[in-house]
Formats: sequence, structure tokens, C-alpha cells
Amino acid sequence: MRVLVPFDAAEPKTRLSDVFDRRERAEFAYAMLEDVLEAVRESGEEPELLATAPLADERDFSVPVAVDDRPLSPAINDVLAGADEPVAVVMADLALARPIDLRRLVDVDEEVVAVPGRGGGTNALVIRHPEFRVDYHGVSFRDHREIAARIGAEFTAFDSHRLATDVDERSDLVELLLHGEGHAADWLDAAGFRLAETGGRVTVQRTDGSDSERLK
Amino acid sequence: MRVLVPFDAAEPKTRLSDVFDRRERAEFAYAMLEDVLEAVRESGEEPELLATAPLADERDFSVPVAVDDRPLSPAINDVLAGADEPVAVVMADLALARPIDLRRLVDVDEEVVAVPGRGGGTNALVIRHPEFRVDYHGVSFRDHREIAARIGAEFTAFDSHRLATDVDERSDLVELLLHGEGHAADWLDAAGFRLAETGGRVTVQRTDGSDSERLK
Repeated sequence: MRVLVPFDAAEPKTRLSDVFDRRERAEFAYAMLEDVLEAVRESGEEPELLATAPLADERDFSVPVAVDDRPLSPAINDVLAGADEPVAVVMADLALARPIDLRRLVDVDEEVVAVPGRGGGTNALVIRHPEFRVDYHGVSFRDHREIAARIGAEFTAFDSHRLATDVDERSDLVELLLHGEGHAADWLDAAGFRLAETGGRVTVQRTDGSDSERLK
Repeated sequence: MRVLVPFDAAEPKTRLSDVFDRRERAEFAYAMLEDVLEAVRESGEEPELLATAPLADERDFSVPVAVDDRPLSPAINDVLAGADEPVAVVMADLALARPIDLRRLVDVDEEVVAVPGRGGGTNALVIRHPEFRVDYHGVSFRDHREIAARIGAEFTAFDSHRLATDVDERSDLVELLLHGEGHAADWLDAAGFRLAETGGRVTVQRTDGSDSERLK
């Protein structure tokens, strides 16, 4: 099985601009990427990085890197069109993914297995049907379910809170502080982020208060 | 095993006030409750309703109902103190819970099994340790993990996006429209709610536009 990990190396994690500055966003994104690549590897698969641009600072994760600056869907679909084995796509911001979660996922023996992300996205896919193509635009989980139905492919959703958590915005950092164990969780802790309760909701704040003016 | 389903009958789902009016909030909350009670029953367990007030309109779900107007933690802890068998607590707003999810949950043979809700809550618990007590205030998942450690009880987190989704606010309705199959999803559909994309995010809107002024 090929396991693709798409990564936005050009402008990572823009929706975390209210939490991190630009340099921090890149550091954090690379920490999550490292977590995901390690989890794939420890699950017994070999990850391949599919990056929108060359990695910053000549970073090297000892994995094959393909650079493709097109949007995600055509880049993935080109791989699918040429693949002669199953293909998995695992997003680079699944910082709660453990090897066992990914092992269980790729062991589900269906033609299309999709992991819904919170909010309608598709956080991971395992594709064993030769005609299936991806469409990450919009409510992609619903679209992928419909695409599978259209081509007569078996479709299964994989139910996991860890894999449903793609880390895109401040509220997702709560999950990382609560349940994370890897580089990204360590980075967040070292950067001074802690859980905080405001008005009955749980959020994250920097202990030095430096991000309070960024809080909406 | 006893399976308690706590339900706020007095003022249900206040955090959905920007989406529903008061009557709708109650209808929706009862639809979710019915889904949860059915899922528990179809999982092979007998649910018991633990309500903060008598049910509105003499509703009858054919389950035992205990009314306890105290906060959730003391109400549950009284049951735990007197229990001579395992006790499960399943929140009444887990509208994505299927019988198989609950069956898998209660089959995890550990002293304390906790289902993290998104945002730090505890959406379900299975308690087989006589000294374990609940504390639902604040970041309760973390607290429950610490309580278990303090009394030397085995603690396991149960990983499920469906069970992590307690339906509290507008963004949670996206999950219900995408993944729901029961009374609450039907109610939401009949009330005219559909998925909508605004600025790259997925949300829900009423097709008749009547809730647009409520949208933040």
C-alpha cells in the first residue's frame, strides 16, 4: 500500500494565525507532520510526502518527497490514476493519530474507507477501487461517499475521534493538549499553552498572556 | 450493568439558542434523548433516565425515570455510592450514538472507561471500580483520568468520533446532518436545516433563511 501524506509547505496553518505568528505556524505544522510520518511508519507502512513546495530549511524526514504545487485533488488523482496497488491518503495535521489507529484503518478491508474529519472534511482515505477519485473541495466526506456510490464501490466510514481531529484552529488545540503525546503536543506545551476555561467553554491560552489580544 | 442517561429537562440545550427558539430546543433535545435511549436499548442494555425535572408534556419513553434536581455530579455519585454492579453514564445528546458503538463501549473490560467529548468533556463513562466518583465540572475528561489514577483504577479512553460528538451548538449540527440517522437528524431535516459553506467552513442553515439573523 502507498501512503501519501499531503503537506502545505507554502503557507501552513493559516487558520491558526490568531494563535501563532508565521514562524510558529511553520514550526507547529512541521511538528505535526513529523508526528504523522512517525505514526504511519510505526503502523508498518512507508509514508510518502506530497508537498506543495520544497520543505523549508532543507528539512529531511527520511521519506520520499514529491513536490506538486497544484491543488490537492488533482495531485492525488494523478497518483490514483497511475497506481497499481491500494493508496491511502493521511492528512499531515492529524496530530492525535497513533500507529494503532492507522493500523486499524488500513486493515479495514473495503474498497473505500474514509475517516470523517470534524466539520465535513475527509481526514484520511484508503482506496482499493481503481475508479475512485478524490474531491477535497467543500463537504468532502459527503462528496467521497457520493463518488463511491456513483461508481458502485463499497464505502465505509471509520469512526475515530483521534483521526477526526485535524488541527486547524484554536479549539482543536484543546484536543491536542488533552490527548496528544507527540512532537506537536510537546511543542505546544513548551510554547506555554495550557487549557483554560472561559465562560464554561474550554480553550487554550498562553500562560504568559502574550496571545490574549489575539483571542476572539 | 446499570445505564444512566442524564437529561436536563428544565432548560435543555441553551447553547443552541442562536439556532432554535425555546420550543424547538425542547423538541430537538427530546428527539436526541429518544435516539440515545433507543441506541442503549438496542445495544442490549436497559437505560434509566435521570432527569433534572419531570419530563415535559408527560412524555413517556417506557424507561424508569428518576428526577433529581441537583447538579449532575452529586446525582450520579449517589447512584455510584449505592451501586452493587457496574454503572454506565451516557449523555442524552449523543445523537450519533449507534447501538454498536455503545455495545463496543460497554464491552471494554476495564475499571473505568471514558469517552472524551470534543472540548474536554466526558460523554460517556463505564465504571466498574467501587471508589470511582465523577466530577463533571470543567475539563471533566482530564479530571476523570486523574480521579482514576488517584484511586489506582485502570483507566481507558474510548476513541469514537460519533460518541465524542455531544450536540451543544451550531457546529455540532453539521455532524448530525452528515452522520445522523435517527429522530434528531430527521427533526433537523424536517425543520429545514441543510449544510452550507460560508468562507471555507461548513455550517448549517435553514433553507427558508429564517435563522440567518441568528447566525453569528
